[in-house]
Amino acid sequence: MSTDTITCKAAIAWEAGKPLSVEEVQVAPPKAGEVRVRIIATGVCHTDAFTLSGDDPEGIFPAILGHEGGGIVESIGEGVTSVVVGDHVIPLYTPECGECKFCKSGKTNLCQKIRATQGKGLMPDGTTRFSQNGKPIFHYMGCSTFSEYTVLPEISIAKVNKSAPLEEVCLLGCGVTTGMGATVNAARVQKGDSVAIFGLGGIGLSAIIGAQMAGAGRILAIDINEKKFDLATQLGATDCINPKKFDKPIQDVIVEMTDGGVDWSFECIGNVNLMRSALECCHKGWGESVIIGVAGAGQEISTRPFQLVTGRVWRGTAFGGVKGRSQLPDYVERYLAGEFKLSDFITHTMKLEDINDAFDLMHSGESIRSVIHY
Amino acid sequence: MSTDTITCKAAIAWEAGKPLSVEEVQVAPPKAGEVRVRIIATGVCHTDAFTLSGDDPEGIFPAILGHEGGGIVESIGEGVTSVVVGDHVIPLYTPECGECKFCKSGKTNLCQKIRATQGKGLMPDGTTRFSQNGKPIFHYMGCSTFSEYTVLPEISIAKVNKSAPLEEVCLLGCGVTTGMGATVNAARVQKGDSVAIFGLGGIGLSAIIGAQMAGAGRILAIDINEKKFDLATQLGATDCINPKKFDKPIQDVIVEMTDGGVDWSFECIGNVNLMRSALECCHKGWGESVIIGVAGAGQEISTRPFQLVTGRVWRGTAFGGVKGRSQLPDYVERYLAGEFKLSDFITHTMKLEDINDAFDLMHSGESIRSVIHY
Repeated sequence: MSTDTITCKAAIAWEAGKPLSVEEVQVAPPKAGEVRVRIIATGVCHTDAFTLSGDDPEGIFPAILGHEGGGIVESIGEGVTSVVVGDHVIPLYTPECGECKFCKSGKTNLCQKIRATQGKGLMPDGTTRFSQNGKPIFHYMGCSTFSEYTVLPEISIAKVNKSAPLEEVCLLGCGVTTGMGATVNAARVQKGDSVAIFGLGGIGLSAIIGAQMAGAGRILAIDINEKKFDLATQLGATDCINPKKFDKPIQDVIVEMTDGGVDWSFECIGNVNLMRSALECCHKGWGESVIIGVAGAGQEISTRPFQLVTGRVWRGTAFGGVKGRSQLPDYVERYLAGEFKLSDFITHTMKLEDINDAFDLMHSGESIRSVIHY
Repeated sequence: MSTDTITCKAAIAWEAGKPLSVEEVQVAPPKAGEVRVRIIATGVCHTDAFTLSGDDPEGIFPAILGHEGGGIVESIGEGVTSVVVGDHVIPLYTPECGECKFCKSGKTNLCQKIRATQGKGLMPDGTTRFSQNGKPIFHYMGCSTFSEYTVLPEISIAKVNKSAPLEEVCLLGCGVTTGMGATVNAARVQKGDSVAIFGLGGIGLSAIIGAQMAGAGRILAIDINEKKFDLATQLGATDCINPKKFDKPIQDVIVEMTDGGVDWSFECIGNVNLMRSALECCHKGWGESVIIGVAGAGQEISTRPFQLVTGRVWRGTAFGGVKGRSQLPDYVERYLAGEFKLSDFITHTMKLEDINDAFDLMHSGESIRSVIHY
């Protein structure tokens, strides 16, 4: 057990709407049931940008953002039994305690054990492990991977195969698992099914991979940025559609193209109007639409109830419905077995010092994922 | 095969917003694939009132309304093989052809074979069998049970056990099947589940029966008319709730009462605000809400997408998800076996001449179902 505080570099979000600032922070040793992890690599996700923008009503500052990381256990707190120093781990913003009503239900991955403190940027004991000259800095999504070292509850880490490169499998900490999990786990796409995917960012492209792995017969990829179509096609999309090229609502276009609508649709952006389109392009009688994207604060979805009464189903998923500790290691194994590639998603790599460039690339639509290498 | 036109009594809806008028009409003989039925009894349902009011954008006049009937086959058209003269039948507003994409899917009861003509108040060949002095009168929901005789496509009748009293099992033609089917067929309520039912009309009360038959552990019955609570309790409701007695939204009340929300909820009224309440009183992670009620034209449902992303599911059902020809006869058998009673629903019986009284009783909230005996 470590009792030393580590001083290391981290990208601090001092306030909403400002660039991150790379500075030295102090990372306290793990308390009981906690693990300190040296982060090796982290993706930069839209959710980080959403919080940094100030649009996230639950955003707390100052904080260390980042939630798509891969790292190595540096030290463990009292009572930690599931990992040892040197284990390779992926931090989980959706923990898995195995004991709460949610974990025990067998129906959801939304463990609620530490939800209240995590939502406040705190560790389960109500304090932070990050500080700068004695002034506390908040955690973020229970992960805070934009730091060379971070502290996580034991229930918030998935131990993964050491032979997997953390610079790639870090993407399984959020985007790729969210998209793939939504199609194969939450939605259970079947062989021959038709699938429409709205938005071709990291999540949408991962959803294409998932649909392709599930044997979907037709995969419609929808985006207004046609630059994404090449990769989408390469990953398995059978039709790429730019809604701007049509005079009528995109749902009508899709219903016509698919003889009545798709079996499954996925909204991978967070746009409430597209969530409606995604529902309404589903086939009458059985089509199901899955919301993956996170909408802005206060925004609402709507439709005519007739859409549901005539057999469509509207659902959503977080982290692809994947239970992090019991299922994420398998995703890493499947990656190692060559079932899917992660390198396609990594359009840029950079040092922590250049992390603001990653946000710029994301906002301009130039990147799928930038990965920070520590 | 009959070639005679029958002249008989029917309640004609000459125009929206006016009372029905009981007059003589001519009912042409069944054409190929059609069956003429002598109606023995029919329930009067809110959907009839909705169309008569003029609020139904698909309402067509003049028409013979009614869609919850029971009758006896009087004559059959060419090629009809599934029934013979004298068979007892329940007309189906949701047919079952067994051949269309929908029937073959195995995923829905929404047969689309004759949807286009049925929606226009016509038989599949594009004409009507009803007329008065040569002037055509339209069919309604493919049933038109407010007439002593009606003509139906063969695919729109369920042949049922002759020992079942048609004055009671006519209710299986709509309301009771819709409510029971939603809980046991569309929703698959499991033993011990918690269930919230919004609206205690015929459909809501039937949903209570279904939930009780499925072994639900807790059945919350919600209505602003407390007169309904006695029967609801008698049928299996464990808690009766009047939303007017609380200062906060009913969904918050239910979430508190049930330690996080219910496993299933059913909206049985057609009120879009209650549809939202019904969704939001579901348990995070797995709760599913089923819309049964039919909302007014142009009305929309809405919620924050977060409700779905955190695991709730929004769906709907028509006719309880029940396939009329292959499954409805079983409902009659279960009724005959004593699994549920129908007499509880029948608060009034009357002659066709008094049918406008049935609408008045319904609007005043005095009746559950009035049944017309021919």
